[in-house]
Amino acid sequence: MATSNEKTLDDLFLDTLKDIYYAEKQIVKALPKMAKAAQSAELKAGFEQHLVETEGHVERLEQVFELIGKPARGKTCDAILGIIEEGKSIMDDFKGTVALDAGLVAAAQAVEHYEIARYGTLKTWAEQLGLSEAVTLFDATLQEEVATDQKLSDVAETAVNAKAA
Amino acid sequence: MATSNEKTLDDLFLDTLKDIYYAEKQIVKALPKMAKAAQSAELKAGFEQHLVETEGHVERLEQVFELIGKPARGKTCDAILGIIEEGKSIMDDFKGTVALDAGLVAAAQAVEHYEIARYGTLKTWAEQLGLSEAVTLFDATLQEEVATDQKLSDVAETAVNAKAA
Repeated sequence: MATSNEKTLDDLFLDTLKDIYYAEKQIVKALPKMAKAAQSAELKAGFEQHLVETEGHVERLEQVFELIGKPARGKTCDAILGIIEEGKSIMDDFKGTVALDAGLVAAAQAVEHYEIARYGTLKTWAEQLGLSEAVTLFDATLQEEVATDQKLSDVAETAVNAKAA
Repeated sequence: MATSNEKTLDDLFLDTLKDIYYAEKQIVKALPKMAKAAQSAELKAGFEQHLVETEGHVERLEQVFELIGKPARGKTCDAILGIIEEGKSIMDDFKGTVALDAGLVAAAQAVEHYEIARYGTLKTWAEQLGLSEAVTLFDATLQEEVATDQKLSDVAETAVNAKAA
């Protein structure tokens, strides 16, 4: 039996909500740099479109904070900082080379998969906590992240890497 | 046109191979701690089984290094360090609570998704570089990572979180 002081799934849910809120805000900052760096027009446009979507994800998270009556606040997410740091290294190391876009796609897919993991987890927890509106919001974002990852795979399998090979 | 000094997809491939090699070795170190921390027997057994698989993933990567005639060497991977660091925080913050196992599953799924992103990328690049034996090796690991992620989702949807909610 849980005592009243013991942490429960509600606490874990809030912690993880803060984690992904921080992560999404970092991604909003990173995407314009990735769009600027991208050499192919298709990839550039893809990053710009995903920036608009990501701003929508931030808003959906703010709606979830409101649903549970908590202020929308981020919590430093070491995972996304590490993933973005790796992406920056790729941008620096492969700047001006034929392999740059392939590296940008790989970095973006690492970001997408982090988000897919977190939104999948949050959706499951929201179901178990009976937060049905939050389930709908997480699911909408999750579907967009999965679609973005698929688009990036399509880009990787066509022009971008063929050029670099 | 690429000049002879310009970095190409071969360089990006080797960089990323070193990145995931480092990451897998970190995961080999982290999994016994996660197995020890897990409260449910099912989750504990799952982490132990995945440790055996992960040791196999390290060996497959060593085979790929051999295929391309390079020494098997890791390169610090900030992404996996960040992801594992977050997992450690969850273990500390939720130690002894009903939500610990749910947090461990979430941490493990973040790890799996990082690997799914990286092996998907490496498999695509290996195809483009004509490294067909490497494609087979990456695909074998990728399928195991996807299966592990699915098993973790099943665990999350059943006992572990219901207990914590």
